[in-house]
Amino acid sequence: MLASLTRNSTALRGYAGGYAGALRRLATAAHIPTTQKGVIFYEHGGPLTYKDLPVPKPKPNELLINVKYSGVCHTDLHAWKGDWPLPVKLPLVGGHEGAGVVVAMGDNVKGWSLGDLAGIKWLNGSCMSCELCEVGHEPSCEHADLSGYTHDGSFQQYATADAVQAARIPAGTDLAEAAPILCAGVTAYKALKSAALMPGQWVCISGACGGLGSLAVQYARAMGLRVIGIDGGEGKEELFHKLGGETFIDFRSCGDIVAAVQDATRGGPHGVVNVSVSESAIQLSTQYVRATGTVVLVGMPANAYVRSEVFSHVVKSINIRGSYVGNRADTREALDFFGRGLVKAPIKVVGLSELPEVYELMNAGEILGRYVVDTAR
Amino acid sequence: MLASLTRNSTALRGYAGGYAGALRRLATAAHIPTTQKGVIFYEHGGPLTYKDLPVPKPKPNELLINVKYSGVCHTDLHAWKGDWPLPVKLPLVGGHEGAGVVVAMGDNVKGWSLGDLAGIKWLNGSCMSCELCEVGHEPSCEHADLSGYTHDGSFQQYATADAVQAARIPAGTDLAEAAPILCAGVTAYKALKSAALMPGQWVCISGACGGLGSLAVQYARAMGLRVIGIDGGEGKEELFHKLGGETFIDFRSCGDIVAAVQDATRGGPHGVVNVSVSESAIQLSTQYVRATGTVVLVGMPANAYVRSEVFSHVVKSINIRGSYVGNRADTREALDFFGRGLVKAPIKVVGLSELPEVYELMNAGEILGRYVVDTAR
Amino acid sequence: MLASLTRNSTALRGYAGGYAGALRRLATAAHIPTTQKGVIFYEHGGPLTYKDLPVPKPKPNELLINVKYSGVCHTDLHAWKGDWPLPVKLPLVGGHEGAGVVVAMGDNVKGWSLGDLAGIKWLNGSCMSCELCEVGHEPSCEHADLSGYTHDGSFQQYATADAVQAARIPAGTDLAEAAPILCAGVTAYKALKSAALMPGQWVCISGACGGLGSLAVQYARAMGLRVIGIDGGEGKEELFHKLGGETFIDFRSCGDIVAAVQDATRGGPHGVVNVSVSESAIQLSTQYVRATGTVVLVGMPANAYVRSEVFSHVVKSINIRGSYVGNRADTREALDFFGRGLVKAPIKVVGLSELPEVYELMNAGEILGRYVVDTAR
Amino acid sequence: MLASLTRNSTALRGYAGGYAGALRRLATAAHIPTTQKGVIFYEHGGPLTYKDLPVPKPKPNELLINVKYSGVCHTDLHAWKGDWPLPVKLPLVGGHEGAGVVVAMGDNVKGWSLGDLAGIKWLNGSCMSCELCEVGHEPSCEHADLSGYTHDGSFQQYATADAVQAARIPAGTDLAEAAPILCAGVTAYKALKSAALMPGQWVCISGACGGLGSLAVQYARAMGLRVIGIDGGEGKEELFHKLGGETFIDFRSCGDIVAAVQDATRGGPHGVVNVSVSESAIQLSTQYVRATGTVVLVGMPANAYVRSEVFSHVVKSINIRGSYVGNRADTREALDFFGRGLVKAPIKVVGLSELPEVYELMNAGEILGRYVVDTAR
Repeated sequence: MLASLTRNSTALRGYAGGYAGALRRLATAAHIPTTQKGVIFYEHGGPLTYKDLPVPKPKPNELLINVKYSGVCHTDLHAWKGDWPLPVKLPLVGGHEGAGVVVAMGDNVKGWSLGDLAGIKWLNGSCMSCELCEVGHEPSCEHADLSGYTHDGSFQQYATADAVQAARIPAGTDLAEAAPILCAGVTAYKALKSAALMPGQWVCISGACGGLGSLAVQYARAMGLRVIGIDGGEGKEELFHKLGGETFIDFRSCGDIVAAVQDATRGGPHGVVNVSVSESAIQLSTQYVRATGTVVLVGMPANAYVRSEVFSHVVKSINIRGSYVGNRADTREALDFFGRGLVKAPIKVVGLSELPEVYELMNAGEILGRYVVDTAR
Repeated sequence: MLASLTRNSTALRGYAGGYAGALRRLATAAHIPTTQKGVIFYEHGGPLTYKDLPVPKPKPNELLINVKYSGVCHTDLHAWKGDWPLPVKLPLVGGHEGAGVVVAMGDNVKGWSLGDLAGIKWLNGSCMSCELCEVGHEPSCEHADLSGYTHDGSFQQYATADAVQAARIPAGTDLAEAAPILCAGVTAYKALKSAALMPGQWVCISGACGGLGSLAVQYARAMGLRVIGIDGGEGKEELFHKLGGETFIDFRSCGDIVAAVQDATRGGPHGVVNVSVSESAIQLSTQYVRATGTVVLVGMPANAYVRSEVFSHVVKSINIRGSYVGNRADTREALDFFGRGLVKAPIKVVGLSELPEVYELMNAGEILGRYVVDTAR
Repeated sequence: MLASLTRNSTALRGYAGGYAGALRRLATAAHIPTTQKGVIFYEHGGPLTYKDLPVPKPKPNELLINVKYSGVCHTDLHAWKGDWPLPVKLPLVGGHEGAGVVVAMGDNVKGWSLGDLAGIKWLNGSCMSCELCEVGHEPSCEHADLSGYTHDGSFQQYATADAVQAARIPAGTDLAEAAPILCAGVTAYKALKSAALMPGQWVCISGACGGLGSLAVQYARAMGLRVIGIDGGEGKEELFHKLGGETFIDFRSCGDIVAAVQDATRGGPHGVVNVSVSESAIQLSTQYVRATGTVVLVGMPANAYVRSEVFSHVVKSINIRGSYVGNRADTREALDFFGRGLVKAPIKVVGLSELPEVYELMNAGEILGRYVVDTAR
Repeated sequence: MLASLTRNSTALRGYAGGYAGALRRLATAAHIPTTQKGVIFYEHGGPLTYKDLPVPKPKPNELLINVKYSGVCHTDLHAWKGDWPLPVKLPLVGGHEGAGVVVAMGDNVKGWSLGDLAGIKWLNGSCMSCELCEVGHEPSCEHADLSGYTHDGSFQQYATADAVQAARIPAGTDLAEAAPILCAGVTAYKALKSAALMPGQWVCISGACGGLGSLAVQYARAMGLRVIGIDGGEGKEELFHKLGGETFIDFRSCGDIVAAVQDATRGGPHGVVNVSVSESAIQLSTQYVRATGTVVLVGMPANAYVRSEVFSHVVKSINIRGSYVGNRADTREALDFFGRGLVKAPIKVVGLSELPEVYELMNAGEILGRYVVDTAR
């Protein structure tokens, strides 16, 4: 009947073409189940339940991705708690670092083939028509659709993603290791780009040994920068040097951080990437940054402010710039550095069914390194 | 029946949603005829026929635009002749400066409403997924779809355009006057942006009084630049000053153009926009441009080369940069200058049915100013 | 004898050449008196005395400028009070907006002739060898020598200035009107450059009708920007429109400044120039600036901080950038806009002997417009 | 007597201060001989004579540098032949890659101490007051004073250099190895900066294994770029990979260079640095460069032209940019990469007295690697 409809109804030809196309694609993707496993919650702070969920259907512009692995990010905790000023879809399947395989696609999708590797990132889709989208600032688009936040995300076996924004992952990539690059990696890389540095200049990574920080140190090195890092705790200095960092400042033992950073870099770093979520660490960065240098804000501690003294801000002509995830080009580039072996996120792989315990660890602040869930278990 | 189909057929929900949506939109757009008037040609150099053509159907990502006016551009002549190295669709409805009203749209279109004013420009659509599209260079995309060249254009009453690329024309705009902005205006404006000048610097417009040139002079003025223009012929100098130009060089009477331009600008213009299609004029621009300045290539004379002497190119550290139409942001900006009354293209409006004669004039090199066709006659 | 010295003493040839040269130049400048009139103070807050002072001698790299007119700036008040964190030379002749004529020069000066018009600006000289000086950020040089602050300034009839930094004023310029351009004009212009805007974009001038603000409005217009201004008080709106501003917000009557600015500019201005010294006005600018836009800090209220909320700073990816006076290129450019009649500072000319009363007015906050002193009376 | 002069002559105080200062400095530098060894020629193509020459005296703004080592550059051959369009000082001591120790300085010099290591580079001094000097383009200054060309250079034991332009070489640097960095290194580095690339992008070095090319490959690597190199001859590919290059194209065996370069880089390199002096190699680079990429011209074959096809130049929106040596910041940065061990020029050290034979080798085109002369022998 469907076939006869499209065959007979002349008035609809053209308008309905997408419909028939969708059916054709559906046929080639006949192995897609109707239900799948995923982790969902129905209210903020409510139970995170691992259960059977319907497989979503891609819209004309969307891919359906069979998610193999997904990274777990601190933002997932904020979405669950609902403590950010942006409203969250409820009920919600979280996750925005999903790496998998394209198994179906809407009829209007261009440039993708079934079987391609694809990534689900924080920015699921945007309007593509506002001033910001026009010039590559789509993450700041007012109509941004966010994976695991306003759009069901990657903590399920099958998830949808706008084809224009979905990340293109080269064939042969290790999907478990690539997953954290899709958000943490891109964010660290974009922050470094936002600092607008030249190879050979100094960048300070404040919070150098955490999840974002350890990626930022590696990207910075690959970009030809000299890296000074600030962090504290057992084994951090050793880790920092292993990642390629040059000078380490332990904030626990360092009496005067501003002086120490400026001495080590002969006048202060040309750029600072604040991945730390300490408000006081952010304030210090406005003091130790080199004249005409750039302080980049990335980490978003709740209700925090950056404060900078006007007189020295002017006389030193410094810049404080916000950097928010990354666009399509940033994503491609961040994955390229990863693919060439220059950046590696240390991960712990657990089953998707164990995700609720990972949230508990994050909530307790006891997490170390990046957790990645395997959706097959 | 259609309604019951989408209501009952669970398996299709999601895939078929766009289908029902398309029908709804079709209903509101019931006044769209099935045939229309347009000008078509079936082979290169063959007859340009004004006749009844079927109204095209928009794809899911496309707008159907009721074209009211369309500018006529020299590129239309190249498409008809087939003398450029890019293959042309045949048969072809030309035209890529169409201004009209959205009367229908595919189901996957976001951010447009029926009744919006919209423009059909040279770049009808692009892949949106390559490196170039990612960073706003979509006109250079290898998969670019070109209005009036690889995609039927605006020399018809109803034409389709990719919703992402279609130009957004503010309500209340005079569509006849806006039409030439969609290609000529954007091209002139983008060339000036490509010269990377600061307000207060000198720009030379080589070919200042032609169609592109007279727009470039006005945009340059609106951008705070000082304008020196080169052209020749009766009344050109007067026109140039009326457009806002500061210093005019008549190439017919000026013995030493390089010296004249450098004297007038105390060392040469910081930028040069070559809208002239004279190869020798382009060569001169590499000589009179200021040290560290930028020569922009815009006009595309057939089989032409720019030649620059290496020693002085290096010692003066000049740039020669190609500028090709403009992207979505350039289009919005170019229209904004026009909308604020800072730029005005002198146009002659004729009926669409008279288009073949306009081609004849262009072919004979006898055209002055910009022709705009009214699709209603 | 001097001649025989340089003729006979082979060992000194070369070393002493500058000496003989200096003498020759001295001869041509025989009309320079040994004493002059100037205004000096000996301790912070102490009496400002108009009296006879010795004419200073230029060092090998310096010009001796016969100052004709000097603007009076709020910074002069800070130097007199000593309430900024930078130490001041004592006793001090203030002033850093001096316009005059070159009457002598050190032997190592290149590119200047006696009789040239020259300007004394805030940056009297810098080391020219540090990283900042190398790339045109000499105002932020740690060894900056500041006119009327660490180096006797332009509140005297003869003052010295490093030849590399002294402003080149075209012959025929009205020196009284040019004086305020040397600091206020350059500062306003540089702030606009620091906002990194494109012609056609919106800039907000916060404090639009004060001394710096009214110059900023005019420069912004000349740069092709659209100007929204914030200020308050009798006649301010009228003045603003007369200067070329497009939309005026009166902070006294406007209930919600953030909303008003964003509505008028459809999303916020692309840049903000904070010439106001109100800390709360600065804070507001971080809220109403457009996403990815730039807030420029220029005014330096004592002990003030700029505070920006981290979450929106990141999501909107805004910049807060300090802009501090201008370099040699900025000065030349600012003077060029002035010379072309695009910018005009409303001035009141009084005698140098009346300068103490001008300080009193400034101290009382009762000054309107720019005072310029005539050193001849 | 000199003392009494400066003591008694009140009128001259200030003017003569530099004179007395010069004497003081002379005293501390009493070990400076009056004659020295150097290589001089009196006419173009005339004998290059190793002989006793008077030690030059520094002007007030100059350093006197005891040159320890000097690199030999192809430009020295052009100066000797006089075959460039720039006039040469005669008689001339050539050389512009001199590394040595400051032994005296003019009285107006700031920021240098006796005993500092300093470098003599191509740009000995510039006017510091023109538009180009203001913004860091001093190598293109019309009044540029060129070492070993318009100013006696580094092929002598004592040479003078403008203190502002002289290169600052960190204490402890190996002066023989540093010498070629002062011109060849800076030129290669600046060309890469001129290509305006981001880390991770592809750069093609055309002429990858010559003197400039082998430095360019190393700088490119240190800047995080991916390097494709074109060259030909025995052992070149091995050398290229040893320097850090990724993909090598042998122009002798490669049938289609454009295709080979584009295939290897998936669309062409984002930048090309033409250090080759082959005109046809330059032409090819305009074809294989990636869309929107930059072709940098560095090498200056006599009477050569770069030719680029206008149609593809426009549609691909490419850029052809000249890069000429480097400024003070470029020099500091190039030396910093060298000092950190990231770049190394393979050198052959010979005595200054052997310089004439080195010219013969250069003239015969038989030179391999970089010759450095030791001025002590």
